[in-house]
Amino acid sequence: MAESNKRVVLAYSGGLDTSCILSWLKENGYDVIVYVANIGQEEDFDALEDKALKIGAKKVIIEDLRRIFVTSYVWPAIACGLRYEGRYLLGTSIARPCISEGLIRTAKAEKASLVAHGATGKGNDQVRFDLSCYSLCPEIEILALWRKREFYTRFSGRTDLLEYAHKNGIPVSATPKEPWSTDANLLHISYESGILENPAIPAPIELCKMTTNLENCPNEPEEIEIAFTKGYPSSVQNLDNCYVIDNPLEIIEYLNEIGGKHGIGRIDIVENRYIGLKSRGIYEAPGSKILYEAHQDLEIYVLDREVLRIKSYLAEKMSDYVYNGFWFSPECDFVRESIERSQKYVTGMVRLKLCKGSVSILGRSSDISLYNENLVSMDKQGDFQPEDAEGFIRTQAIRLKEFHRFKKQQQIAE
Amino acid sequence: MAESNKRVVLAYSGGLDTSCILSWLKENGYDVIVYVANIGQEEDFDALEDKALKIGAKKVIIEDLRRIFVTSYVWPAIACGLRYEGRYLLGTSIARPCISEGLIRTAKAEKASLVAHGATGKGNDQVRFDLSCYSLCPEIEILALWRKREFYTRFSGRTDLLEYAHKNGIPVSATPKEPWSTDANLLHISYESGILENPAIPAPIELCKMTTNLENCPNEPEEIEIAFTKGYPSSVQNLDNCYVIDNPLEIIEYLNEIGGKHGIGRIDIVENRYIGLKSRGIYEAPGSKILYEAHQDLEIYVLDREVLRIKSYLAEKMSDYVYNGFWFSPECDFVRESIERSQKYVTGMVRLKLCKGSVSILGRSSDISLYNENLVSMDKQGDFQPEDAEGFIRTQAIRLKEFHRFKKQQQIAE
Amino acid sequence: MAESNKRVVLAYSGGLDTSCILSWLKENGYDVIVYVANIGQEEDFDALEDKALKIGAKKVIIEDLRRIFVTSYVWPAIACGLRYEGRYLLGTSIARPCISEGLIRTAKAEKASLVAHGATGKGNDQVRFDLSCYSLCPEIEILALWRKREFYTRFSGRTDLLEYAHKNGIPVSATPKEPWSTDANLLHISYESGILENPAIPAPIELCKMTTNLENCPNEPEEIEIAFTKGYPSSVQNLDNCYVIDNPLEIIEYLNEIGGKHGIGRIDIVENRYIGLKSRGIYEAPGSKILYEAHQDLEIYVLDREVLRIKSYLAEKMSDYVYNGFWFSPECDFVRESIERSQKYVTGMVRLKLCKGSVSILGRSSDISLYNENLVSMDKQGDFQPEDAEGFIRTQAIRLKEFHRFKKQQQIAE
Amino acid sequence: MAESNKRVVLAYSGGLDTSCILSWLKENGYDVIVYVANIGQEEDFDALEDKALKIGAKKVIIEDLRRIFVTSYVWPAIACGLRYEGRYLLGTSIARPCISEGLIRTAKAEKASLVAHGATGKGNDQVRFDLSCYSLCPEIEILALWRKREFYTRFSGRTDLLEYAHKNGIPVSATPKEPWSTDANLLHISYESGILENPAIPAPIELCKMTTNLENCPNEPEEIEIAFTKGYPSSVQNLDNCYVIDNPLEIIEYLNEIGGKHGIGRIDIVENRYIGLKSRGIYEAPGSKILYEAHQDLEIYVLDREVLRIKSYLAEKMSDYVYNGFWFSPECDFVRESIERSQKYVTGMVRLKLCKGSVSILGRSSDISLYNENLVSMDKQGDFQPEDAEGFIRTQAIRLKEFHRFKKQQQIAE
Repeated sequence: MAESNKRVVLAYSGGLDTSCILSWLKENGYDVIVYVANIGQEEDFDALEDKALKIGAKKVIIEDLRRIFVTSYVWPAIACGLRYEGRYLLGTSIARPCISEGLIRTAKAEKASLVAHGATGKGNDQVRFDLSCYSLCPEIEILALWRKREFYTRFSGRTDLLEYAHKNGIPVSATPKEPWSTDANLLHISYESGILENPAIPAPIELCKMTTNLENCPNEPEEIEIAFTKGYPSSVQNLDNCYVIDNPLEIIEYLNEIGGKHGIGRIDIVENRYIGLKSRGIYEAPGSKILYEAHQDLEIYVLDREVLRIKSYLAEKMSDYVYNGFWFSPECDFVRESIERSQKYVTGMVRLKLCKGSVSILGRSSDISLYNENLVSMDKQGDFQPEDAEGFIRTQAIRLKEFHRFKKQQQIAE
Repeated sequence: MAESNKRVVLAYSGGLDTSCILSWLKENGYDVIVYVANIGQEEDFDALEDKALKIGAKKVIIEDLRRIFVTSYVWPAIACGLRYEGRYLLGTSIARPCISEGLIRTAKAEKASLVAHGATGKGNDQVRFDLSCYSLCPEIEILALWRKREFYTRFSGRTDLLEYAHKNGIPVSATPKEPWSTDANLLHISYESGILENPAIPAPIELCKMTTNLENCPNEPEEIEIAFTKGYPSSVQNLDNCYVIDNPLEIIEYLNEIGGKHGIGRIDIVENRYIGLKSRGIYEAPGSKILYEAHQDLEIYVLDREVLRIKSYLAEKMSDYVYNGFWFSPECDFVRESIERSQKYVTGMVRLKLCKGSVSILGRSSDISLYNENLVSMDKQGDFQPEDAEGFIRTQAIRLKEFHRFKKQQQIAE
Repeated sequence: MAESNKRVVLAYSGGLDTSCILSWLKENGYDVIVYVANIGQEEDFDALEDKALKIGAKKVIIEDLRRIFVTSYVWPAIACGLRYEGRYLLGTSIARPCISEGLIRTAKAEKASLVAHGATGKGNDQVRFDLSCYSLCPEIEILALWRKREFYTRFSGRTDLLEYAHKNGIPVSATPKEPWSTDANLLHISYESGILENPAIPAPIELCKMTTNLENCPNEPEEIEIAFTKGYPSSVQNLDNCYVIDNPLEIIEYLNEIGGKHGIGRIDIVENRYIGLKSRGIYEAPGSKILYEAHQDLEIYVLDREVLRIKSYLAEKMSDYVYNGFWFSPECDFVRESIERSQKYVTGMVRLKLCKGSVSILGRSSDISLYNENLVSMDKQGDFQPEDAEGFIRTQAIRLKEFHRFKKQQQIAE
Repeated sequence: MAESNKRVVLAYSGGLDTSCILSWLKENGYDVIVYVANIGQEEDFDALEDKALKIGAKKVIIEDLRRIFVTSYVWPAIACGLRYEGRYLLGTSIARPCISEGLIRTAKAEKASLVAHGATGKGNDQVRFDLSCYSLCPEIEILALWRKREFYTRFSGRTDLLEYAHKNGIPVSATPKEPWSTDANLLHISYESGILENPAIPAPIELCKMTTNLENCPNEPEEIEIAFTKGYPSSVQNLDNCYVIDNPLEIIEYLNEIGGKHGIGRIDIVENRYIGLKSRGIYEAPGSKILYEAHQDLEIYVLDREVLRIKSYLAEKMSDYVYNGFWFSPECDFVRESIERSQKYVTGMVRLKLCKGSVSILGRSSDISLYNENLVSMDKQGDFQPEDAEGFIRTQAIRLKEFHRFKKQQQIAE
């Protein structure tokens, strides 16, 4: 596989897997440029750099992608109403194309013809990384080590990795690994594998880090108001203390903080992976859960019913595309631009109450909406002619009466 | 309009509107058979009968439809995953066809050629009643009084009704009417109109009856386990006290009780009515919220991904049909039978935690499901060949690489 | 109904119905401004003007809408791939909003608060006229005479109209009416009613006017080539005589001529009207049939598969909207703009053969398309790795193998 | 790869590719059981058997699957209205699972753990064979030789195959190979590759075998009538000579004959293959084209409009499943059973005219349908109240008027 000193950009997390990969790549004659994307995960980035250099990276590039992640990935996901299989808010799925953009940018800048990653062969992330990279740069070569026979037969389990790390002077965290795996960014943390693989057994109480367990949440609710402009979150106000935020990154951070405090946005689901497996995952995404609910409420308030139906259909399709790794694809571009056209009207405010895992909508308003209090009011007739409803219903009934006649004929015939 | 002594079956609630309608119908020469469906609303049915007879009903028929409502309407709605515009669980929508069946059954038994109701001319319920009745009995005549000019010009507001009630000896409740209107059955209570018509203003704290306000809910969560058999709820167990219920009516009643205690299933939404208006409604449906969440979780666990996609599409269509009044229709029959075929596999159990408005899934199990712990496990390779994923992804990338080539050509051409 | 000298704009065809309507409106105290849209129907417009003035029109306005009809209605319908229930190319459906625009423009210019038309109460056209007018001008009043009791009880059949015409000096065509009704414009002619109402009986051979009966078509095929630019037809060339046309109106006229000569675009269908009836119609639309086929061929050649799937879904929705009268609506705007985005790439040429009712595609080309001869060729390997297909298929099979396991477990359990 | 005397069932066509594969498998130590499915292709099956034995087959099994192909694959495809990308009637796609069933049946009977085929690595057929086999028998091993490096590097072109055939005594047809490849069964013939790979160049006139070139078709049309029972073709009558057929296999053969004579069912298309390539194919399917058109006509005549919409959606999905190789899959089972429920009403007759490539519907009838001549007639009022249409339209307009108001507000705000 290895040519002498072929240059490869490695997506590096600092964990045992990618550290061993880094060392192994070097051992196999690659020049490894380590790429670390800061998308809001808790991390000591300086220590990461030291570690990578120590293991043998030619160069370490650490990019702060947090702002671009929020405005180019998270906000569109909120505006498009993305949600996979009715529940998962795609926190990892939208991070992968963002990181891939960084990888390809780096590969081009560093004149590397390869990128490498440590995503497993049964998972979704390998698909997301690879398809994003191929879309952005079709001629790129991808080294997915866990799919390479020489690698996965060399390292058949954690013990092999630990031993290899020991031998090669790779620093290993003193604390024993938790019996599950984790992916974190500023939008969410996901947990899967290990003891979580039995879908009947509740998650251990020590699992979650962004959201307080319900037992420990405050007993009293808190109220906030979120403003949207053309489908994008534009500000958040805490109605108890009147604190206002209007910077995208701070909005999501604040909603994570207050949502996490109230135990919001935690889900325990079984989901359908792209490659055809079902897996069990636990996710916590306090901020995006709040934003999803608020946006949906405002959207239905503002948009025409039939436009909403089409938009919903497109959002379901787009959620599948994004989950499956097709963020950069003709279909995702097409559907996203279509949906975003519907959002030009989604401007207004939603008021919410947060408490022990629940997000309750209290009210919403917009300078301009299709809601018409005069028209709907039971106390005013407005323009409305009740006889029109009579004709409406009687005309709708024509088809039903015909079906009744039809079934009668069928019964006679049988 | 009136012929002498034409027989009409009136859907009667005992409230001011239908009481005045009853009196007015009699005054206009109709023989009125009063029909009251008990679908679980809080009511003194004996008092209702007395009142109707006193006002002038020829006959009063009170039917306990609670069991048939649960097994023929609520359970199918749960199994089909019905939910309107992503939020409303259709508690009123599925009650209307159930009551309409009773109306038509009564009209046939009593040889009445007319049915009458007091649904307003701007609402959905008129459509649901009328279409259900026309579907079941195309030759029926429907008197929707609030759409009849001679009626709605006679009674232009509540004052007219009160005055008429007073003159005609119709008993009026001593307590002043609440400034909103309500519809209740064993599945839910809805609130709309009056002071709720301003969608920006939060609902008053005294509004809800089935669910405790979050501030007053227990601070401690409670856990339950729900079993489903072929998509239908088959039992509920309280995991704290091991109390088990397996009777359909009692299941929904128990879930309402425990869900209500924990403030679950309350929504404040703006929705799109069939006739083209947006209206604001507040609903509480503790039991059906819990069942919806549990059923969805089990279904995704058990069913094939692609079947699930089709089923979701059909469920969205069916939700619209049911909301719009087409429970009895060729399309609803067709879609419902299709969906129910998918449910033959939906058997298993879901464990949930209830707390202050939140329903959290803790785990699920099924004797038979498409979930395969051996296959998905990160710790075992199973049958899985990582190289297969390589080929899968590279093949998926063909189309994306082609699109990259295509866009490049476009750019050059422009 | 009538106020003294209320101004009304009447959509006038010159036929018996609208002539009687004109006279009757005048008789009932209206000032009638007659509006005639030239959308390509065969007509002596001067004679029409004389007739209308003679009957009593205050003013006659004749507008040549042919060019606007082609560029703003026909071309978009082609680019969007509109077709109702898989067969009907919507020739009448897209003409109605075009005429309605003219009616509303005229009503505003003439300060008339009413528009009137002679569409029947069982048909689709009334819906299309009315919804278009209401969309463009919500405060407009519409006089649909065939839905007005005083009118339709006055004229219960053709005899009444003829008698009234005779009494009121309305000139009636000497030739007896054909036993069916017709609607014609530059895109198509439709035939329905009368002897056509029995769907089992073939249409009479003398029915069609735009297309030659197959028995009389030339026995030899003719070949043409159509160019599209961004989804819109941009030129037509006759490959036998090299005749080229690139003006929109002339393109459609030429395709009607050559298509008509070869008997193309005639359909005999039963369709589902919006109000819930099934009706039988015979349509001839030679030019739009040819354009539909050519456009579809080029589009599949040029566009990405997944984009095509979404576009097809949207086109089906839009076809229903347009058929049902919602050309001017939020949903039609939304879907149309979305579809048209997909068309930016639909540029190229299609070669066709026309013969005795058949349109055969012979080939297509485009400077830029996703078709890649090198990649697909069986004679070259190109970039393609056959092993990748192995992995692709084996990964797709995971889900199927799991389903096999699942069914086996089910069988054991039963 | 090869174990000594491992048993493999080879799908054998008798052509150069599968003959070389047979010889090569034997050479590599396999016991090869040759399987030939007769699905209506023109073939001398005795000669095929001799040839296979001569090359070295252990055993040759030839099965006549024609009847099962018609009743279990073709009729369902017609009833479900399958058509890929609006044009291709899936003649090859539905043959592959039928053959795969035979392969797996044979593998089980012969205790072979392997099946082999000669489908190319860029095509759809490999996917269809493999997925069908894996679905029916997950533990089967599949040898797709054109995806095996040792095979495809050994035989890099036709010359290598010819040379190998020569050396190994494999008889090669004297006539030079046509410069395209072909797949034939009783439903259709497909042509692709070679000189057809340039999509701009019309097919050569000598290409097609089932359908007469338009230039040579009879100039006079012929009329037939097709009866369907519950969606399945049940008889065909030639209306010129009153010849009647009611046996499934004979129905399709007769329709191929008469359709072929009139040049019907030939298409030249570019299509999207499952693996992401676009390819150009020419297909001729005279019988299934006629059946498709007739079935569609009857279905729209008989079925409710809204049921039809859902059915159309499902048919599009199922067409993709079948094209992509998922005939045996949970989603295809689910969708097919759903669609077939809609077909219980599709019973009746359709009259058609065939001429020079065109199929024209002349009329249709059914003992029981939703078509109601009395109701739709322009000459009778029937039950219909024209005022009801007024109310219907005015109610539909509410939403449109609201949108007008909304846009005005937007304009003011901007």
